[in-house]
Amino acid sequence: MSSRSSKEIIILGAGLVGSLFSIYLARRGYSVHIFERRADMRKENIAAGRSINLALSDRGWRGLKGAGIEDEIRKVAIPMHGRVIHNLKGEITRQPYGEKGQSIYATSRGILNCVLMTEAEKNGVVIHFNERCTGIDLENTTAFFNDKKVTGRSIFSADGAFSSARLQLQLSTDRFEYSQHYLNHGYKELIIPAGEGNSFLMEKNALHIWPRGGYMLIALPNLDGSFTCTLFFPFEGGDSFASVKTKEECMKFFRRVFPDVVPLMPALVEDFFHNPTGSLVTVKCFPWSYKDHLCLIGDAAHAIVPFYGQGMNCGFEDCTVFDELLGKYGDDLKTIFNEFQNLRKPDTDAIAELAYMNFIEMRDLVGSQQFLLQKKIEALMHEKYPTKWQPLYSQVTFSDIPYSKALANGHRQQEIMKKIMKLNDIEKKWDSKEVEKMILDHIS
Amino acid sequence: MSSRSSKEIIILGAGLVGSLFSIYLARRGYSVHIFERRADMRKENIAAGRSINLALSDRGWRGLKGAGIEDEIRKVAIPMHGRVIHNLKGEITRQPYGEKGQSIYATSRGILNCVLMTEAEKNGVVIHFNERCTGIDLENTTAFFNDKKVTGRSIFSADGAFSSARLQLQLSTDRFEYSQHYLNHGYKELIIPAGEGNSFLMEKNALHIWPRGGYMLIALPNLDGSFTCTLFFPFEGGDSFASVKTKEECMKFFRRVFPDVVPLMPALVEDFFHNPTGSLVTVKCFPWSYKDHLCLIGDAAHAIVPFYGQGMNCGFEDCTVFDELLGKYGDDLKTIFNEFQNLRKPDTDAIAELAYMNFIEMRDLVGSQQFLLQKKIEALMHEKYPTKWQPLYSQVTFSDIPYSKALANGHRQQEIMKKIMKLNDIEKKWDSKEVEKMILDHIS
Repeated sequence: MSSRSSKEIIILGAGLVGSLFSIYLARRGYSVHIFERRADMRKENIAAGRSINLALSDRGWRGLKGAGIEDEIRKVAIPMHGRVIHNLKGEITRQPYGEKGQSIYATSRGILNCVLMTEAEKNGVVIHFNERCTGIDLENTTAFFNDKKVTGRSIFSADGAFSSARLQLQLSTDRFEYSQHYLNHGYKELIIPAGEGNSFLMEKNALHIWPRGGYMLIALPNLDGSFTCTLFFPFEGGDSFASVKTKEECMKFFRRVFPDVVPLMPALVEDFFHNPTGSLVTVKCFPWSYKDHLCLIGDAAHAIVPFYGQGMNCGFEDCTVFDELLGKYGDDLKTIFNEFQNLRKPDTDAIAELAYMNFIEMRDLVGSQQFLLQKKIEALMHEKYPTKWQPLYSQVTFSDIPYSKALANGHRQQEIMKKIMKLNDIEKKWDSKEVEKMILDHIS
Repeated sequence: MSSRSSKEIIILGAGLVGSLFSIYLARRGYSVHIFERRADMRKENIAAGRSINLALSDRGWRGLKGAGIEDEIRKVAIPMHGRVIHNLKGEITRQPYGEKGQSIYATSRGILNCVLMTEAEKNGVVIHFNERCTGIDLENTTAFFNDKKVTGRSIFSADGAFSSARLQLQLSTDRFEYSQHYLNHGYKELIIPAGEGNSFLMEKNALHIWPRGGYMLIALPNLDGSFTCTLFFPFEGGDSFASVKTKEECMKFFRRVFPDVVPLMPALVEDFFHNPTGSLVTVKCFPWSYKDHLCLIGDAAHAIVPFYGQGMNCGFEDCTVFDELLGKYGDDLKTIFNEFQNLRKPDTDAIAELAYMNFIEMRDLVGSQQFLLQKKIEALMHEKYPTKWQPLYSQVTFSDIPYSKALANGHRQQEIMKKIMKLNDIEKKWDSKEVEKMILDHIS
């Protein structure tokens, strides 16, 4: 690879987005080389203990379908029909995610990534492993690695939240907008192992949540009957990673706030102190491209917190949108890069905000009676007037409405529901004609 | 320099803040070495054409005084008693900055920097020139340069808005908050040369402003009778750097919007196309320090836009605050770094916001009748009730009220003045007892 006038494309990163995107480019006739800093995870053990389980939803499926690999992934995904909320006493409540038949799908990041890489290779993509990018010459569209340099038509940077290509834009272009913002919460992966004969020890087809105000635990099912759990917990303060320092404190804390989990986690204490504590970053930047030489995609352009389950789905939607532009503008990558970033920036800013809002909702609100009632009213409205009232969660998860439009719709609906929830006796008349008419009046 | 347990301090950058800060440290008994990437500007020509003139105000003077060099600087500073506003017809209006005797002081960045470096050396500080920092080992408190590495007790990073030490914090520490945000406006330096016998061709003791809505020109006096002018102008759009491309377009533009300036700028066209176009960045980050190994100070920690004339003043106030903490905690640098960043962060965030607000005020408002009337009412209130009503500009410029408190006061006052300016016939009764009583009622 040594020419800018060729159809040779360099992708940095063979993660989920890099691998999927390479298939789209290969199918458009480009010769694609991916450079991945890690070893081939299909041959070596995957580094565990630090990957939040993924939830595939409509935007993600659309991205996979467009590359012709939806069926391959369906085989390894577990449908989750709704949330199962666990309260302090261990009692549970169910909240469906959408209408009957609408689900999100628990998927192992590792398995998904392996399938995507293999499919990419089937499409002629060449993946070079153990190649860490050490720098980029933007003017010459050249990427440097420890032992070589490579020049191509364009470089796509799918190298994640800490992208080295984005750093190059920060360091060597003028007026690059950039921010990285961290939550005061970190996360820790824990495991509920399978029962006898690979049985599930909790309801299989659900996303489990233990909302506790300032923090929460979640669990997603795995194919082998286990659940991958993630504790989202403040770094400092009252109940926090800083305050839980000993084995005794850990057991005491879990018995107090997650009593029903303790018997299901035989390795709780070991996992808690052995697994790393991850941090949660939101990255925003602009522009995402440099001439037709470089373009950021996925987390490299817009890393978000995981609370809407949209990080991967949003990255896959990047691929769908980019491919549509390839269909529209052919090989005119300069126009495409420009339109891509202008199209996607408002939407990725919106999902960043939505993801943060859902953190508040999941940890604080899903446990409250008011919140549950509001969800019930919204579900009823949606059932009766599907085109007039689509709950925000459904717009984000079960549609391809642009995120920015979903966010705007969501704000408008929340204003209406605020008024409705203040009505006297709303808990008695929530399904009345009167309330329904008020909502319809507010809409129009 | 090779030991962490010594009293040897490394400062990166011999700019205004680095040079002044070195004097404070030297006076506290530290052995200070500054490493500066440029050549010694006292021996070589200063790169001109890209430095906004500086306006020293109270916080800056306090910083200089604390290091014992106020008198040295007074000799090279020109008092500016107020703004002189130039309208489209070339007519002027005057706005005093404060009470009689209160001024801000035009100073050449180059001259000021030279004096500060010489004073630093008199205090025993060693300045190493042509030493570009290529990296920092945070754990070992070691700075790397092209030809050497240096270890000290602590490293202070006074290396400006594009600090290499701050980059190290971004790249190698977890949960580092960082943002860089650019205005859509850039700036261009222009010159009004002195008249015959070094005479000033406009009023000497003033800051001249040509507010034009979306953009503005300003001019500050120099010792030699010239004025350094700065055009703040959008990069793109209607009237913008992008739209003024030829000599003819440049002359036509200036004749149309700055007619009184054109005869005073014989080299207008040459300067406009020869001088670089600067960009205007706001940088925020946190934390500012790493253990007691590294601490950011000045623009490296908090670069702001120049519209309140507070960038340097704020950096000098950093020095004052830090020195007070040295007085309080002695050699306990770990405690000092921590307290320094927690103390200063809210104030530097506030001046960043104030600087942006003043951009709007200067380019849009200083030309309006309503705005001038509001300033007159506020000045009257301050004259009558100096402790009850201090205009925001005075709090920032002529006091040491923390910036964050000034900003909060300013917001409160603005709310009151909004109501007052809406009164019927306010232009007739602005100095009446009735209006005065209303304002006093609002305050309490």
